[in-house]
Amino acid sequence: MNVTSTQQDLLEQASDFIRKCYTELGKSEQDMHIRLQEIEAEIIMQGHYEHTSEELTHGAKMAWRNSNRCIGRLFWDNLSVFDARQAITTDEMAEAIWRHISTATNGGKIKPFITVFPSSGGAAEQSPRIWNHQLIRYAGYESGDGTTIGDPASLSFTKLCQELGWQGDGTAHDILPLVLSIGSNEKKWYDIPKELALEVPLSHPDIPEFEALGLRWYAVPFVSDMLLEIGGIRYTAAPFNGWYMGTEIGARNLADKDRYNKLPEVARLMGLDTSSNSTLWKDKALVELNVAVLHSYKAHGVTIVDHHTAAQQFMRFERNEQDSSREVTGRWSWLVPPLSPAATHIFHHRYEDRVVSPQFLYQNKS
Amino acid sequence: MNVTSTQQDLLEQASDFIRKCYTELGKSEQDMHIRLQEIEAEIIMQGHYEHTSEELTHGAKMAWRNSNRCIGRLFWDNLSVFDARQAITTDEMAEAIWRHISTATNGGKIKPFITVFPSSGGAAEQSPRIWNHQLIRYAGYESGDGTTIGDPASLSFTKLCQELGWQGDGTAHDILPLVLSIGSNEKKWYDIPKELALEVPLSHPDIPEFEALGLRWYAVPFVSDMLLEIGGIRYTAAPFNGWYMGTEIGARNLADKDRYNKLPEVARLMGLDTSSNSTLWKDKALVELNVAVLHSYKAHGVTIVDHHTAAQQFMRFERNEQDSSREVTGRWSWLVPPLSPAATHIFHHRYEDRVVSPQFLYQNKS
Repeated sequence: MNVTSTQQDLLEQASDFIRKCYTELGKSEQDMHIRLQEIEAEIIMQGHYEHTSEELTHGAKMAWRNSNRCIGRLFWDNLSVFDARQAITTDEMAEAIWRHISTATNGGKIKPFITVFPSSGGAAEQSPRIWNHQLIRYAGYESGDGTTIGDPASLSFTKLCQELGWQGDGTAHDILPLVLSIGSNEKKWYDIPKELALEVPLSHPDIPEFEALGLRWYAVPFVSDMLLEIGGIRYTAAPFNGWYMGTEIGARNLADKDRYNKLPEVARLMGLDTSSNSTLWKDKALVELNVAVLHSYKAHGVTIVDHHTAAQQFMRFERNEQDSSREVTGRWSWLVPPLSPAATHIFHHRYEDRVVSPQFLYQNKS
Repeated sequence: MNVTSTQQDLLEQASDFIRKCYTELGKSEQDMHIRLQEIEAEIIMQGHYEHTSEELTHGAKMAWRNSNRCIGRLFWDNLSVFDARQAITTDEMAEAIWRHISTATNGGKIKPFITVFPSSGGAAEQSPRIWNHQLIRYAGYESGDGTTIGDPASLSFTKLCQELGWQGDGTAHDILPLVLSIGSNEKKWYDIPKELALEVPLSHPDIPEFEALGLRWYAVPFVSDMLLEIGGIRYTAAPFNGWYMGTEIGARNLADKDRYNKLPEVARLMGLDTSSNSTLWKDKALVELNVAVLHSYKAHGVTIVDHHTAAQQFMRFERNEQDSSREVTGRWSWLVPPLSPAATHIFHHRYEDRVVSPQFLYQNKS
């Protein structure tokens, strides 16, 4: 039978993955050989192949390990995988996602999970998609006067939800609905059950007035718009979660000028002199906002890591990888934390931002 | 007459420079044409060419403008150039350097200067060199117990100075001597006249005990080990200075673990809880150390810029360049400040780190 160049390509990617995966799992040469013959036959017959549960699980872990932007990779081998490849309707997807959110949130003791929905089997018209950037995220609304209520990063997605018929309450912390589709079928939206979305109201250990700012954030970051590629098979819906590093919330989501932009309010609360850049009022407010984030998550029993500890964990990851004769790839600009970066070893190292498969990939947003 | 490929190469670089330079200076096509013919004849006759004073001055300014790592480029056109191409002994070089330090320091009202020593004219054995990384910098000594007194970044250069016969006092702030050479002749060292090296003792506006730490830094950063390349001519000794951005001192020189490593002492002074990373004691100490730097330089009438203002100035530079139809190249990892980087626009932009001539280049250190 003729092998097309597309099939040949997939076969090479599959073979590369299976060899690495089976070696890491300590399987025999014979097992590997038999499996590769199976896969070859499958690809020639139907143009794609199915991962075993074991391949899917280890492949997803490898993809985390290869995530150049992620500082939390020490824990790659602790990822749990929900195999949801049997979910073929959006209702079934939503059910699997509720289970993911609930199990991973775990009452605050967050566990890293990924849910893998069916691959398209090469047929893009069957690809499942989650249109949310994160499963849980706040809506953003343009008010009449040009300001934004809620999260400016959600403006366009919020509009899409509204066009689909969803209506938010118009607060700064409306949780967006889940938006799913399969192939070219229309998008369907689902309200996220209230009891699933754990949130943390923010307070500061030494500044009682801080609480009055009414700041809050959700407990778990579930990234839901990336594509998981394992051995040439592309899973277009594969939401995953770790837990937050404090600076993601305190030095970006709540602090960035084009996000919640809270530094001026925090500075006012602290009574800082904001008349000049050189009083470093932004830097002072930023640190206390981050203190509040770490304090509040801990006080509510929600897993979080500070950037210093995360950097130390990344250093252990680098050592582990060296011990396993694997090279650590990384993207420096993402790995350095946005608060006191030079106080971590990462700032003083260089990383090669080379793409290694399995991997998580961005995909088109519409 | 035959033109060798080296000559052809130099001619192309010269031509590229002269065209850009003369266009920016508003000179006529005819002037440019005549000058290029002169240069061509010079290169064919002697293998190199001499810049006019005007070319040297504008070329040095362009090199600053093209410095991808520099956040202070808004002021590129304010650079003053000392033409020291007549200095052919190390004594003459030292004299020119004393003049540079004195004029640029200007009692604290720092002015950007560059002193350009002779190019080797293609003969490496005649290249003048300054072996200091900066004209003024503190020595570093290994003590018996494995710790360092002074600046760990100066350890190897301090040893070199000692081998040449220099002796320091062994304090944390010994100013290293100037070390010069011409071609393959031996290195000569010169004590920097005490009255030339302006220093700033550090105090904090709100923490009176801060002064007792005995921290200080010199007023002006004079980078002295880079090569200036203009139109293919390489100036191996061309020390230049701007003024400090506060974080260079407060978030790197005094804070880095492998430099003066003062965060633990500052934290102790502030009474911070250092029992856990998550109290963000490093971040708090870092901000106050930087407050002290900015406060002290201002209190002593020494020019300094905070990182927020520097970023705003860089934004103006970017706009100016756009208005002049020039592309701004940059190295993101150097341009983002090491304190609250995401609070500046630079963090949220991408820059192309492309090499543009004229330029400053690293050169071998021995």
